[in-house]
Amino acid sequence: MTETRFRNARLPDGRTVDITIREGSFAAFDDPTNGDGEDLGGKLVLPGLVDGHIHLDKTFLGLPWRPHRAGPTVPHRIAAEKAGRADLTLSVEDRAKRFLAREVSLGTVALRSHVDIDPDSRLDHLHQVMAARDAFAGIVDVQLVAFPQSGVLIAPGVAALLDAALSEGAELVGGIDPVGIDGDMDGHLDVIFALAEKHGAGVDIHLHDPGHKGAQELRAIAARTAALGMQGKVTISHAFALATIDDRTLDLTIGDLRDADVAILTSAPGTGNLIPVARLRDAGVRVFAGSDNVRDAWSPFGNGDMLERAMLVAYRAGLRTDEGLALAFELATGAAAQALDYGPYGLELGARADFVTVAAETLAEAVVERPVRSLVVKGGRITARDGALV
Amino acid sequence: MTETRFRNARLPDGRTVDITIREGSFAAFDDPTNGDGEDLGGKLVLPGLVDGHIHLDKTFLGLPWRPHRAGPTVPHRIAAEKAGRADLTLSVEDRAKRFLAREVSLGTVALRSHVDIDPDSRLDHLHQVMAARDAFAGIVDVQLVAFPQSGVLIAPGVAALLDAALSEGAELVGGIDPVGIDGDMDGHLDVIFALAEKHGAGVDIHLHDPGHKGAQELRAIAARTAALGMQGKVTISHAFALATIDDRTLDLTIGDLRDADVAILTSAPGTGNLIPVARLRDAGVRVFAGSDNVRDAWSPFGNGDMLERAMLVAYRAGLRTDEGLALAFELATGAAAQALDYGPYGLELGARADFVTVAAETLAEAVVERPVRSLVVKGGRITARDGALV
Repeated sequence: MTETRFRNARLPDGRTVDITIREGSFAAFDDPTNGDGEDLGGKLVLPGLVDGHIHLDKTFLGLPWRPHRAGPTVPHRIAAEKAGRADLTLSVEDRAKRFLAREVSLGTVALRSHVDIDPDSRLDHLHQVMAARDAFAGIVDVQLVAFPQSGVLIAPGVAALLDAALSEGAELVGGIDPVGIDGDMDGHLDVIFALAEKHGAGVDIHLHDPGHKGAQELRAIAARTAALGMQGKVTISHAFALATIDDRTLDLTIGDLRDADVAILTSAPGTGNLIPVARLRDAGVRVFAGSDNVRDAWSPFGNGDMLERAMLVAYRAGLRTDEGLALAFELATGAAAQALDYGPYGLELGARADFVTVAAETLAEAVVERPVRSLVVKGGRITARDGALV
Repeated sequence: MTETRFRNARLPDGRTVDITIREGSFAAFDDPTNGDGEDLGGKLVLPGLVDGHIHLDKTFLGLPWRPHRAGPTVPHRIAAEKAGRADLTLSVEDRAKRFLAREVSLGTVALRSHVDIDPDSRLDHLHQVMAARDAFAGIVDVQLVAFPQSGVLIAPGVAALLDAALSEGAELVGGIDPVGIDGDMDGHLDVIFALAEKHGAGVDIHLHDPGHKGAQELRAIAARTAALGMQGKVTISHAFALATIDDRTLDLTIGDLRDADVAILTSAPGTGNLIPVARLRDAGVRVFAGSDNVRDAWSPFGNGDMLERAMLVAYRAGLRTDEGLALAFELATGAAAQALDYGPYGLELGARADFVTVAAETLAEAVVERPVRSLVVKGGRITARDGALV
């Protein structure tokens, strides 16, 4: 039986322990000894980070610096991204690998990536991202969403391409602004949920549409989720409408999301109001966090650091207490792992032996300081050390 | 004559040069040679960072982690801070030194610190911060504001203490929410501006008051500045009202600030709307940036990194283009240097030889990535290397 030990680990609850790992899972947290195993030097141990939303095929990582060129709206950015694809001198696969390497170096053990499926790129991005995923097998778990970035109804052939993508290896079907992009809420959702049903796939829909239009879409997605018995398998990403509707509509919408167990993903963007993270959680809606764009045609910001993302969630949500900082951290760890259906997770006996060590006194300090990841361990195996891949 | 050379420096405009420094100022930017001097290895050279607003006496840096305890309003935080002072097991001087060390390690060459002057601490914080300033003479320039954190009219003896503080070494007189804290706009401003006039001191007033109340205060400060001929010597810090008033009032307020040359300081806080940074700049109002709270009773966030502060300004203002990122960077460098009346500044002949080197391709990339500061140079002298003080 494979057994590994890490000595002198400080847990978020303050205990110092030796960690025993067997067959890739946590087997014991014992009082410290002077026995075998790597000495963690009393560094703080945190559960492995989980990135709930990235775009592996979009990043410019590895390319010379590219100034941002897109206008301010979603259609502007879709158009600018497509116009710029021809200039990219590194393949999707190469850029995706750099993105994954960076995420691992920062402590990510699992992530969900959307991958563009459109009439031009067809399944090409998916195939390249799958190749990058294979290269990182065992190092980081990659869940893929077949994402109709350019719409479904207005983009010829995309429904069939999504179908093919789900057959070939995407675990979830995506969607985008049924009203704002496709101009037909029910028509868009008919296609997406039919594909989900056919493939037994999860759903993760980008919803930028604001205000009452967006709220109507949120509630329609919740209604379909409940009707199809897909509770716990549907995510709505961004859901900016939750930050821009009146209080009564918000209450109704939150109720629908909770009842259908639809999860909400946020990247804590810098502009506009943040969605009411704490209120959603208090009402029983699952909320988790992701990086979203990292150095791509949509945004020059982002670095794939989910500890920094937790800081940004807390910063934007005004979460200042230790409990608030822990909530922001939970969005980038446990809540994301649950949304990704990652399996036994956390610093617990029997969970997958994933952890990160940092030079910080408390979990709250780790969130605000975001120290270099001294060690990243996934399934008992060291994947990164001092911020660099092993 | 003291002459120092740094070879193989890449400037933000793309040129690679050797830098010659004489008597602490930039004397030449020449084509690269293989001559004497430290080889910068083609790293990107940026002007030294300037932090326009900190509180050296408030930080918890150096202490065990302290959970945030204050309620959400300014009076809550003032009260929580005072209640917690007795627990602080490191002196103001020691904590201020740690703060300064951190700022220098991150590339700061000059900063403005507010220092609490209140009926309890009297001039004690000022004296201790002055001792810390002396310890860092030549390493970082420290400008001090005598700051009536607990108010002036409602805090017995504070006006006289501010007077004494300005005699003893504070360069500016501060103020705080004339209406929100002191409840008497003209009474508060009478005291502050009389002290400024008496001592020939600058003014830097904390203004959290929102909405039309805050706009009235902004315009009253501008009117006094113009009436006293103090153009260019007055700052209003935070000025949250600028983010919460109607468009017409905003236009009038911006006109008054521009005409009186009153500068506006922002720390780009995470909650609420950001003040309209680009609009203010476009209208001719000087805007600069600062860290504000760094791990203190007001906020657990903040790390004293002005390159990160530039990122946060850009993130919150939606500045994504290279020009936008350069504007955010300017707020943390040139604009702050001008507000602090730092003297000849920037990567220019004759300017004080302050610079930072980072592993980044462009200025925009430096802002989004915030790489470790490979070298920090102030007045031609290396003050930090690889993120640590020399």
